[in-house]
Amino acid sequence: MKLATLKDNSKDGRLVVVSRDLQRAVDAGPVAPSLLAAVETWAFSAPRLLALYERLNEGQSQGAFDFDPHQAAAPLPRAPQWCDGSAFLNHGRLMEKAFNIAPIPDMETIPLMYQGGSDDLLGAHDDIPLPDEAHGIDFEGEFGVIVDEVPMACDKALARSRILLLIQINDVSLRAFGPREMRTGFGFFQAKPSSSFAPVAVTPDEIGDAWRDARTSLDLHVEYNGRWFGDPNGAEINFGFDQLISHAAATRRLRAGTIIGSGTVSNAGGKKGSACIAERRAIEAIGQGEPQTPFMKFGDRVRMEARWQDRPVFGAIDQRVVRAEPPQAGR
Amino acid sequence: MKLATLKDNSKDGRLVVVSRDLQRAVDAGPVAPSLLAAVETWAFSAPRLLALYERLNEGQSQGAFDFDPHQAAAPLPRAPQWCDGSAFLNHGRLMEKAFNIAPIPDMETIPLMYQGGSDDLLGAHDDIPLPDEAHGIDFEGEFGVIVDEVPMACDKALARSRILLLIQINDVSLRAFGPREMRTGFGFFQAKPSSSFAPVAVTPDEIGDAWRDARTSLDLHVEYNGRWFGDPNGAEINFGFDQLISHAAATRRLRAGTIIGSGTVSNAGGKKGSACIAERRAIEAIGQGEPQTPFMKFGDRVRMEARWQDRPVFGAIDQRVVRAEPPQAGR
Repeated sequence: MKLATLKDNSKDGRLVVVSRDLQRAVDAGPVAPSLLAAVETWAFSAPRLLALYERLNEGQSQGAFDFDPHQAAAPLPRAPQWCDGSAFLNHGRLMEKAFNIAPIPDMETIPLMYQGGSDDLLGAHDDIPLPDEAHGIDFEGEFGVIVDEVPMACDKALARSRILLLIQINDVSLRAFGPREMRTGFGFFQAKPSSSFAPVAVTPDEIGDAWRDARTSLDLHVEYNGRWFGDPNGAEINFGFDQLISHAAATRRLRAGTIIGSGTVSNAGGKKGSACIAERRAIEAIGQGEPQTPFMKFGDRVRMEARWQDRPVFGAIDQRVVRAEPPQAGR
Repeated sequence: MKLATLKDNSKDGRLVVVSRDLQRAVDAGPVAPSLLAAVETWAFSAPRLLALYERLNEGQSQGAFDFDPHQAAAPLPRAPQWCDGSAFLNHGRLMEKAFNIAPIPDMETIPLMYQGGSDDLLGAHDDIPLPDEAHGIDFEGEFGVIVDEVPMACDKALARSRILLLIQINDVSLRAFGPREMRTGFGFFQAKPSSSFAPVAVTPDEIGDAWRDARTSLDLHVEYNGRWFGDPNGAEINFGFDQLISHAAATRRLRAGTIIGSGTVSNAGGKKGSACIAERRAIEAIGQGEPQTPFMKFGDRVRMEARWQDRPVFGAIDQRVVRAEPPQAGR
């Protein structure tokens, strides 16, 4: 089934069930007021949401309405945790080669993951407000999962059973901060402003055998200012989401609704382009001696969409970066 | 005024107002159901909570009851964000000297901060469940603040005006993971399980002139298994909370209820002991050639309390580490 969150001025938004073709929606309030409430009560809510979904797809839903992805918030506008991997090692290897960075120890065997802020997640068509173009504004196209509660020290098999929903992410990154924050050892912070999310979260069955081995084996089509930028496939991820979840839960439990991200999707071979500017710049640096493609300016637009059998899955992320309003003493 | 959260099986707990001497409490439900709800509506809730507080201190509250800190959750059992600084540079300098670590670039001018998980914060007397003694279990005694909504790119003066409440923290740390996670550049993740919080959050006026220059100028008394471990003072912090907040908000807004931590309290000169085992081990390594004090075993207990004019402020953290139950397929 497919679920989305409509903006209603509340912190968690209003849960709707969306038709398979993303054309129609129906209010899910009688089952759960929000997606967070639904994932916190999944054994109760999932069969009821599925019943709504089946009626909606059959055109039998009373009160169904046209689904407008511009009204959608992130599926979870605030999540308990946002844990983002960097699990496509091709990306890391390109960065190391281009910028002469020492290899990260154990990168092949232990997933890389940073903790992101999860209180202010953006919708698919929301503008991305940022303070300064000089910060090296970049997008990162990713896949992700939303999990049920995960116990501490959970193994891969149990972790896999806790995956509820698949999602698609734009992990906005500020490259001017990254190298310094990495050198401190404390990791990314100012380099990682609010991330954005495609409008629809889907159960794994919605992509058939493209969900296999806990990997989202779909091309992620990325357009930058209307031009092809890449269409790397999620299958090449070096750690499945089961292993990423197990890594995240090694010393903590994850509350229901925690989001686990893949890191920027990246494929070896050079034919599939990139899902972030930094990686294209790395490829340029390797091939042409120095990076050519500048980072984003205010007004620049990125579009990201993954389809399955040429049908929509999560809907598209399609958004601009804009100058943030200067802070004011009042709210 | 002084506020606490009683456990009631909800995610956010139940807000109570606590008397200045921490002996009595009164339900604050008519003003706000939870502390998170109160900080999200502070202009409305603060004067009403203050009125409850004044009546409670005068012994005039209908329905007042004995305050039991063992029933208290963290003031915010789940917070929008948990951003923890490492703002006592004496600590970092000791670690560098003891273990021959290269100095962190710009440490004197740019605050160090990591993003913590904020979905599962522990109460002052809760056991700390962890999977393995071999992980190098440590405590870190810290001060912190809870902020109102903070706009992106907020300066120090505005940041300071957004401080609502002062708190006291045990930032539990797993030292076996820290060095490796620092070397990856992605920062602390498995090294930072759930943090714990003293039972009571207080407005800054509750510590008089010990709140100055956006610093909590109180001794933090730390006992480990019943013996003195340290009583470093918060005044020596190298960055005020105003600067830490401004750092955290440089490229994001902070939603109301975000927690900003000081990092382990640490004083130069050696007389004041330490607020974490790692620092004592560093001092031992410098003075005696190698660390002497082992990290925590299951059953070990840490107590942390800050008092003002010999009166209680936040109440005490007093808790044990215990072996986590093994994960099970059911919840």
